[in-house]
Amino acid sequence: MTAEVPSFIQARDEADPIRMFRQRFSLPPGIVYLDGNSLGALPTATAPRLDELVRQEWGVGLIRSWNSHDWIGASRRVGDKIATLVGARAGEVVVADSTSVNIFKLLMAAIAARPGRKIILSETDNFPTDLYVAQGIAALLPQQTVRAVDPGKVLEAIDKDVAVILLTHVHYKTGQKYDMARITKRAHECGALIIWDLSHSTGAVDVDLGAVDADMAVGCGYKYLNGGPGAPAFVYVAKRLQGELKSPITGWFGHAAPFEFAGNFQPATDINRFLSGTPPVLALAGLEIGVALLAEAPRKLLFQKSQELCSLFIERIDKTCQGYGLEVVTPRDPQERGSHVSLRHPEGYPIIRALIARGVIGDFRAPDILRFGIAPLYLSFADIWRAADALRDVLVTRQWDTAEFKARAPVT
Amino acid sequence: MTAEVPSFIQARDEADPIRMFRQRFSLPPGIVYLDGNSLGALPTATAPRLDELVRQEWGVGLIRSWNSHDWIGASRRVGDKIATLVGARAGEVVVADSTSVNIFKLLMAAIAARPGRKIILSETDNFPTDLYVAQGIAALLPQQTVRAVDPGKVLEAIDKDVAVILLTHVHYKTGQKYDMARITKRAHECGALIIWDLSHSTGAVDVDLGAVDADMAVGCGYKYLNGGPGAPAFVYVAKRLQGELKSPITGWFGHAAPFEFAGNFQPATDINRFLSGTPPVLALAGLEIGVALLAEAPRKLLFQKSQELCSLFIERIDKTCQGYGLEVVTPRDPQERGSHVSLRHPEGYPIIRALIARGVIGDFRAPDILRFGIAPLYLSFADIWRAADALRDVLVTRQWDTAEFKARAPVT
Repeated sequence: MTAEVPSFIQARDEADPIRMFRQRFSLPPGIVYLDGNSLGALPTATAPRLDELVRQEWGVGLIRSWNSHDWIGASRRVGDKIATLVGARAGEVVVADSTSVNIFKLLMAAIAARPGRKIILSETDNFPTDLYVAQGIAALLPQQTVRAVDPGKVLEAIDKDVAVILLTHVHYKTGQKYDMARITKRAHECGALIIWDLSHSTGAVDVDLGAVDADMAVGCGYKYLNGGPGAPAFVYVAKRLQGELKSPITGWFGHAAPFEFAGNFQPATDINRFLSGTPPVLALAGLEIGVALLAEAPRKLLFQKSQELCSLFIERIDKTCQGYGLEVVTPRDPQERGSHVSLRHPEGYPIIRALIARGVIGDFRAPDILRFGIAPLYLSFADIWRAADALRDVLVTRQWDTAEFKARAPVT
Repeated sequence: MTAEVPSFIQARDEADPIRMFRQRFSLPPGIVYLDGNSLGALPTATAPRLDELVRQEWGVGLIRSWNSHDWIGASRRVGDKIATLVGARAGEVVVADSTSVNIFKLLMAAIAARPGRKIILSETDNFPTDLYVAQGIAALLPQQTVRAVDPGKVLEAIDKDVAVILLTHVHYKTGQKYDMARITKRAHECGALIIWDLSHSTGAVDVDLGAVDADMAVGCGYKYLNGGPGAPAFVYVAKRLQGELKSPITGWFGHAAPFEFAGNFQPATDINRFLSGTPPVLALAGLEIGVALLAEAPRKLLFQKSQELCSLFIERIDKTCQGYGLEVVTPRDPQERGSHVSLRHPEGYPIIRALIARGVIGDFRAPDILRFGIAPLYLSFADIWRAADALRDVLVTRQWDTAEFKARAPVT
């Protein structure tokens, strides 16, 4: 990764008003990391914070730290910070469980709130866990059916039979972005509830849940939020729905008064009703660092830079990688995409491996997608330039066409 | 906590064959920590391990560490270590989610496997989250009812209407222990399934799931397993039932081949089907340290020491605290109790606070229970002696009877 970068690209980095955030991440030298949509990079503040939490708060404070270090408030405190990134209000977001478990809770809550309606609407190629959880619920509740349609047919598939719609705002493979306002409006016209999975949006893509009058959302903590591997996820429920919607998993942290140890479950009146078990304090502390760092950056600049980086990457691919069988899958119109760029190639798997060997880390999604996550907080225009150059070199030299790269390794 | 300890107590510590494990915990000086059943103490290996995980595996390895550092295998690897503590076999335990979420999954799985049976049997004073989750399921599935009975009436309440029994092996308040073999046998005679909540047992109390032919179990990672605040929980399902029982939360990590990103859910054929979302890698690493440390100690010695420490504490209370209104709630027969000792006193709350001010940390459970967790891996006979002395002093001097201790603080 020592390729030269032209001066006009260096100038763009120098003019980037949020370039200083890169210094607050520990990025390994010689690497261009374009997989922050799978696992976000490490903020420099995370290791010292976790060390302090472990040695002082846990080791010395022990059980007392639930109060003295406000562990008890972390799920809401971090939730409120995430709220600022997605246009939600304080008290509308809480950190809890995993995205999968949160999807389960919200789907079940929505179905119970729309009795008589029989359809969970989603798209055929939604992220697997979203579809799997919906399918599991359909198996559990025989009156429910999953209606999965092509992305382009979602709007027309919303009708009075639909109890709840589950869509991923930015598609994990193609990078295509739904028109959240339009679909939410249509859902409401038909009396359906809607859950937006923001896993590939939060922290890199402009989302304004309040402005579109969104009902519910979930999102992932370990992608653009940089919360660390397996960081907990979040739940958003609009205030107007918090009294009506009920979590099916009625664990003690969702109780109105968890520490009264009462015999009967009484749900919290606020977003806390979507908590279930004891909050993951260590993992929450990691997530809090990542989220706080993002929250420092002006949202508008962040999302604008994401689009400029994506555009630059697509421009360079168009210009330098023609004739090697690559297809740009992600929309060229910034308004229609999220913050990653996907390319299709029949030899996508060995190509991504050859690219990783050159220090450009992207990932592969079967059968033929090369995926490049663009995290605007720590990537530079020079990174994008170098990544496109490296990809061109892999193609021009056919470096991928060796046994070393073609052999299948265990996938994640 | 500088009180003198008699030489025969010192001699017991010197003769303790597992005394060296105490050195492998970071315990704050001057503290006797008797709340390891609420939050276990910090192993000295945890902070360095987490630092390595964060800086090297996450920071440098980034996404590659899912394979290169086997993050992907952690849920099963730690599960297999927990299995050795509870008499389960490799492949019968997996770390996942929280205890509350796991109870939900297992209850739902059991109900589906016993069609036509209408009862979830539990005890009236079970730990709140166990009851709450069962109540939530009864609200969700109108044909199901929670039958909650007194602990002494559980055996006779098992009949052919019972789909599933949910009991906490060691009672969180009283410390009373169920006869797991007898109740499991009766459940099977009636065709019911049974879930044992081992939160207050694992790591401190002898449990042999294999010997009693147990069906299912859950347990907590942050108590005697010393996994850290909010550590993930575990699920046990006997191999003979793994094909039959299905998790209702069909997230991608429970899929037979999660990384094929197939469109339809196909559950894993093994214990992995009880996974749901992406595993919490940071928290798993903390738990792994705690579990590995416990697994080093000979189980028999560990559980025997727990009983000896509990017996010493009760003996000292009986001998030195008579006449101050204290009642020993926990059974005096070691065979009938777990690894904590509970005392009842109408002024339990200010008494525990006065005791904490003297450096003896126990906890309080409303309305009148003082609770002392006895973690055999890091407590000494001298600790127990000092704790009982401190309690006597609080009572004799009526130190608790001041505004400082009687004022209600936020409780956890």
